[in-house]
Amino acid sequence: MPMCVFCDIVAGRKAADIILDEPEAVAFLDHRPLFPGHVLVVPRPHHETLADLPVPLIPGLFTAVQRMTRAVEKALSADGSFVAQNNRVSQSVPHLHVHVVPRKKKDGLKGFFWPRIGYASDAHRVETAERLRQALREGD
Amino acid sequence: MPMCVFCDIVAGRKAADIILDEPEAVAFLDHRPLFPGHVLVVPRPHHETLADLPVPLIPGLFTAVQRMTRAVEKALSADGSFVAQNNRVSQSVPHLHVHVVPRKKKDGLKGFFWPRIGYASDAHRVETAERLRQALREGD
Repeated sequence: MPMCVFCDIVAGRKAADIILDEPEAVAFLDHRPLFPGHVLVVPRPHHETLADLPVPLIPGLFTAVQRMTRAVEKALSADGSFVAQNNRVSQSVPHLHVHVVPRKKKDGLKGFFWPRIGYASDAHRVETAERLRQALREGD
Repeated sequence: MPMCVFCDIVAGRKAADIILDEPEAVAFLDHRPLFPGHVLVVPRPHHETLADLPVPLIPGLFTAVQRMTRAVEKALSADGSFVAQNNRVSQSVPHLHVHVVPRKKKDGLKGFFWPRIGYASDAHRVETAERLRQALREGD
């Protein structure tokens, strides 16, 4: 396996501000936080994307994510939290990681999620839905 | 319970482009997509945030999210996908929902996730980590 900075953190070979270190998940501070308290939650074994994660590892990872949303909100006196996960595009480290970020009202991120473009037509929307259903059937 | 548009969709009282309809999760097209194929995955019962979701419902919801990342990538010939979930801040409907969005390289969203601000100092970072660990201990 090529070198992986998150595997190194999980194994203790690379320093990080570890927040949670458990059999099923490890969490540490993002070193370039969107806001202070921005945490990354990762599965211990190396898997690149969410699609690659073995189903038995899903509960452990996302239970840790759930607990982390409570922790960032409490620790940073936040109004809410943002959970995000990039698969391949915008994914800086190819080891699955879930961002958990404290949010406050008027923190400046309000607009960032909504450059919505919509569908060209109703037919385009209906056709897109049908393609998704088919992909889901084929994928199962 | 006050009226909830996602409860209405789950119950079939409101029309939506349903992509997945299973005992543990329902998925449908976001009506104001970031990009075509933008899907919302919701738990069937009404829970406002991820922190509110009973732990036994976590695997069903996030297994559906995992399958949906594969489906949006395949159906939209995407290069990757973006999974996001807002708790309270930027949360338009107070029924937990996970966005699954197809991504392409150079789709214009590259910058939107990275107005990173960092920590004022190493001490600030270390103190933030400690506050998070304490919140996590208190929350468990």
